[in-house]
Amino acid sequence: MKTEMERENINKETILEKLNWRYATKHYDATKKISAEDWATLEQSLILAPSSFGLQPYKFLVIENQEIREKLKPAAWGQTQITDASHLVVFAHKKTLTDADIEHYVDRIVEVRGVERETMTDYENVMKGSAKKAVDGGYVEVWNSRQAYIALGFLLETAALLNIDATPMEGFDAAQFNEILGLTDYSAVVVAAVGYRDSEKDWLANLPKVRFSEDELIVRI
Amino acid sequence: MKTEMERENINKETILEKLNWRYATKHYDATKKISAEDWATLEQSLILAPSSFGLQPYKFLVIENQEIREKLKPAAWGQTQITDASHLVVFAHKKTLTDADIEHYVDRIVEVRGVERETMTDYENVMKGSAKKAVDGGYVEVWNSRQAYIALGFLLETAALLNIDATPMEGFDAAQFNEILGLTDYSAVVVAAVGYRDSEKDWLANLPKVRFSEDELIVRI
Repeated sequence: MKTEMERENINKETILEKLNWRYATKHYDATKKISAEDWATLEQSLILAPSSFGLQPYKFLVIENQEIREKLKPAAWGQTQITDASHLVVFAHKKTLTDADIEHYVDRIVEVRGVERETMTDYENVMKGSAKKAVDGGYVEVWNSRQAYIALGFLLETAALLNIDATPMEGFDAAQFNEILGLTDYSAVVVAAVGYRDSEKDWLANLPKVRFSEDELIVRI
Repeated sequence: MKTEMERENINKETILEKLNWRYATKHYDATKKISAEDWATLEQSLILAPSSFGLQPYKFLVIENQEIREKLKPAAWGQTQITDASHLVVFAHKKTLTDADIEHYVDRIVEVRGVERETMTDYENVMKGSAKKAVDGGYVEVWNSRQAYIALGFLLETAALLNIDATPMEGFDAAQFNEILGLTDYSAVVVAAVGYRDSEKDWLANLPKVRFSEDELIVRI
């Protein structure tokens, strides 16, 4: 492991410049594909995103099949990003959280960290209690889906850092997406088209970003 | 605006190294403060995060008052990050979305982009329709809260890029937080403690990150 001194620093201005550069791309250049190396980095950023308790109650569906993308398009109001972007990711959250899900995760902790399973019992019970409360309280899907949005944030920021465009999209029929993608235990909650903007066709590409003022968004207490 | 060639490239390995380095810090070094310049960068990453339609249905409460942080701590099960981290951000989503909210946003678009307000009417009506559907369908809070999680993702990733630790926290009583912070139209949904880890006190600091395998998390279709 590198020490703090050895780690490379990333320039603050560069980060903000790239976050300013990104925008919800409306028109992609269908001829430009993301390189395998860049795509692997984006997938890793999805995998590395944190989630509540680390439970990762989601899957990331990378739709490479163009026929499937054509089928998804009408279920997303015909938005061209679905078929024209280099890559398409459907974020699907788990519809519930069972004891078996928690146990599966604990198994993974034991595997990765090489700890004794017995030492995990207290933590396991805390997680099972939280999961049961969420299921009984009817908010387990909301909880799980929110975790997927952290990963969405990671994907969008990482793409921008790599000068790759991305579009977060909620405008689609989740039931239709689930059916087309064969999802039953998971549900599509948000989509990201990822690729390269067609600046000439996309009138949004060169417009200034609209954000409320710092004074309005940030409250200092 | 810089061209693609002029923009500085950020090394892929460096990004992943930093995303691997980050973890949900349990113990902060209360003596280490984030510099004003770094903090400003983190705030900008919150502001630059995208949201559905760009509506930004949230506020970011930066709790600088240590007395308030001491009050919040018992409402977060006594977790020390609430008081010991350099900075504390409470993400609060808007509890509804009214026509006035949409109009306020359209006003901002007009202000930032200098467009004629009349040209925005169609888009304004689409947004009002979506907001009404969300309110009538009872999912407006869920919708708004998910947007806040994108911003959470941006904050966590940007912090990691700057070698700053952060902890996403859902373990708190939102009703108590809202009361302490005087929130009525917004509701606390997630918290981020941000600062510098105390590696000696935090046994988690040097453990390998637990993620499901790529084959399990990513489904290629």
